[in-house]
Amino acid sequence: MENFQFCIPTNILFGKGQISNLPGVITGFGSRVLLAYGGGSIRKTGLYDKVKELLSGCEIYELSGIAPNPKIDSVREGISLCREHGIDVILAVGGGSVIDCCKAIASGFYYDGDAWDMIVSHAEITKALPIVTVLTFAATGSEADAGAVISNPETNEKLSLFSQEVFPKVSIMDPEYTFTVPAAQTAAGSIDILSHLMEQYFVPESTYMSDLLVEAVMKTVVKYTPIAYAEPDNYEAKAQLMWASTIADNATLCNGNQLAAFSCHGMEHELSAFYDVTHGVGLAILTPRWMEYVLSDETAPRFAHFGKELFGVEGSDDMESAKLAIKALYEFFESLGVPMSV
Amino acid sequence: MENFQFCIPTNILFGKGQISNLPGVITGFGSRVLLAYGGGSIRKTGLYDKVKELLSGCEIYELSGIAPNPKIDSVREGISLCREHGIDVILAVGGGSVIDCCKAIASGFYYDGDAWDMIVSHAEITKALPIVTVLTFAATGSEADAGAVISNPETNEKLSLFSQEVFPKVSIMDPEYTFTVPAAQTAAGSIDILSHLMEQYFVPESTYMSDLLVEAVMKTVVKYTPIAYAEPDNYEAKAQLMWASTIADNATLCNGNQLAAFSCHGMEHELSAFYDVTHGVGLAILTPRWMEYVLSDETAPRFAHFGKELFGVEGSDDMESAKLAIKALYEFFESLGVPMSV
Repeated sequence: MENFQFCIPTNILFGKGQISNLPGVITGFGSRVLLAYGGGSIRKTGLYDKVKELLSGCEIYELSGIAPNPKIDSVREGISLCREHGIDVILAVGGGSVIDCCKAIASGFYYDGDAWDMIVSHAEITKALPIVTVLTFAATGSEADAGAVISNPETNEKLSLFSQEVFPKVSIMDPEYTFTVPAAQTAAGSIDILSHLMEQYFVPESTYMSDLLVEAVMKTVVKYTPIAYAEPDNYEAKAQLMWASTIADNATLCNGNQLAAFSCHGMEHELSAFYDVTHGVGLAILTPRWMEYVLSDETAPRFAHFGKELFGVEGSDDMESAKLAIKALYEFFESLGVPMSV
Repeated sequence: MENFQFCIPTNILFGKGQISNLPGVITGFGSRVLLAYGGGSIRKTGLYDKVKELLSGCEIYELSGIAPNPKIDSVREGISLCREHGIDVILAVGGGSVIDCCKAIASGFYYDGDAWDMIVSHAEITKALPIVTVLTFAATGSEADAGAVISNPETNEKLSLFSQEVFPKVSIMDPEYTFTVPAAQTAAGSIDILSHLMEQYFVPESTYMSDLLVEAVMKTVVKYTPIAYAEPDNYEAKAQLMWASTIADNATLCNGNQLAAFSCHGMEHELSAFYDVTHGVGLAILTPRWMEYVLSDETAPRFAHFGKELFGVEGSDDMESAKLAIKALYEFFESLGVPMSV
């Protein structure tokens, strides 16, 4: 078992109606709020109006139009707004893209220079504006982690920043806010969750407990994604996936493992930096191919076990089982309507 | 899936040699330290000397002799020391009893009145001295939770306090510090861990994911306890149990469950308030009897599943399987040398 450091300070408020806690949460940090969101779906669902109503006592400035694979221009715009209006707290209402963008804004606010330079140079982030999130999409786990991924279309780069300072202070996670997510997006989100789990599972060395914990959440994703895909307002399915997304991402399950082998996540970031493909779709396309590519006598037993645990497939030997596992994973992605090539 | 709030702010430093971070950790809070420990085993193992050497730049005041099922008198003594010497930070070196005692000291420090009154009256704790722990025994999970249990031998009461304020700020968890724990104590610790897990598992309603997560950690305890019992210096076994103890206790695994049915923990606290029995031993004695007592057509399927998953036992129907499960659990406790009656 490897040494590790682990601290997830985010205060999670999970479940129906937790939004009612928003005023108390926000005013604990101040009254000048940057409200950040994406393409406007929160206006259609009524969440925008709800937030504005709840925060009627605050001064709200808005940053809208944050795109999937959030772009550095939105980060720059957010930093300007925060500086101009003396923002006390950033409220991210959306999924991982909005939250990631807000993490870069929160840290860039204190950076003396251009935000992209901060990211490219891996500048140490020692201070950030407080971030509160209202999650509307289960996928990245950004609601309770220390990382963000930002794209720069000018340079075709998609790069990460990490700092304990950018953990959201509070994340409000109401599964009902994911009822209106289109089925294809729900599928893509689940694939991202599964991919985070595989990243912790296909490693040089893992612990007995971590294997079982990761399998537990992988099985949950495999069980509930088809339900959530077919029944967008199935609370239990959406709730299980939402909580799975959080703990799949923030190392809760893999502490003590030797990490580093799974390359699909990194490859997908390179891919979407060029083609702006949906992250989960890119992962679905890459992962079974990566498995085939690295399949060997050495890797087959692990893939075989994965296939048996997740999909109940098993061949006469490890190699055959591994091939069945890869096929089952491919078909699982296909069954969720993912275009398996671009 | 039930609503929940979840926040574990403790910074965990896990693994060999993490003690080297102690000076930086402590001085982040100040230089006047209350060093709290138990019966003196840390003097024999050399950990006491190591801590003193590492903190040679600090002013250290000591509270020693904290007993298992920590007593209110130790709490009162600790509060007096903290007030007398203007303590900045409490360093708990030990297991759950030492840490629990320190949590009561940390909160009692700010309480205007007797510490036992604070506990009996469930006074709201809004402030506490910072606590840092060096864990030497895997059992209670107190190193990363918000609770403490304190005994009052005068009234034969053993009562809990809870507050987000008493979470240890930092916990140093080096499995090597548990190498010298006597085998019987290792067994008792594991039974406590298992009991915390059963508390989350035998509930009116649980989620699919939580069941799998709890089973993962229960299996880990069942696998590694006999190894740790037979080989006290088996690092992997001690490490898995140590990390299991933390996540078994602090709700990481059971978020979204409807809690409340498992009564053995509460019963054992009543028992040990009178007889000062080791908590894990009391739990081992009570649990299979409780299972027999509540065994019915309604409860049998769950016990049957538990037996199959943990011990691989299975009968021809749920009732028979459940009885085999109870027997297997009893024998597991017996195999660890636990006196199954008092």
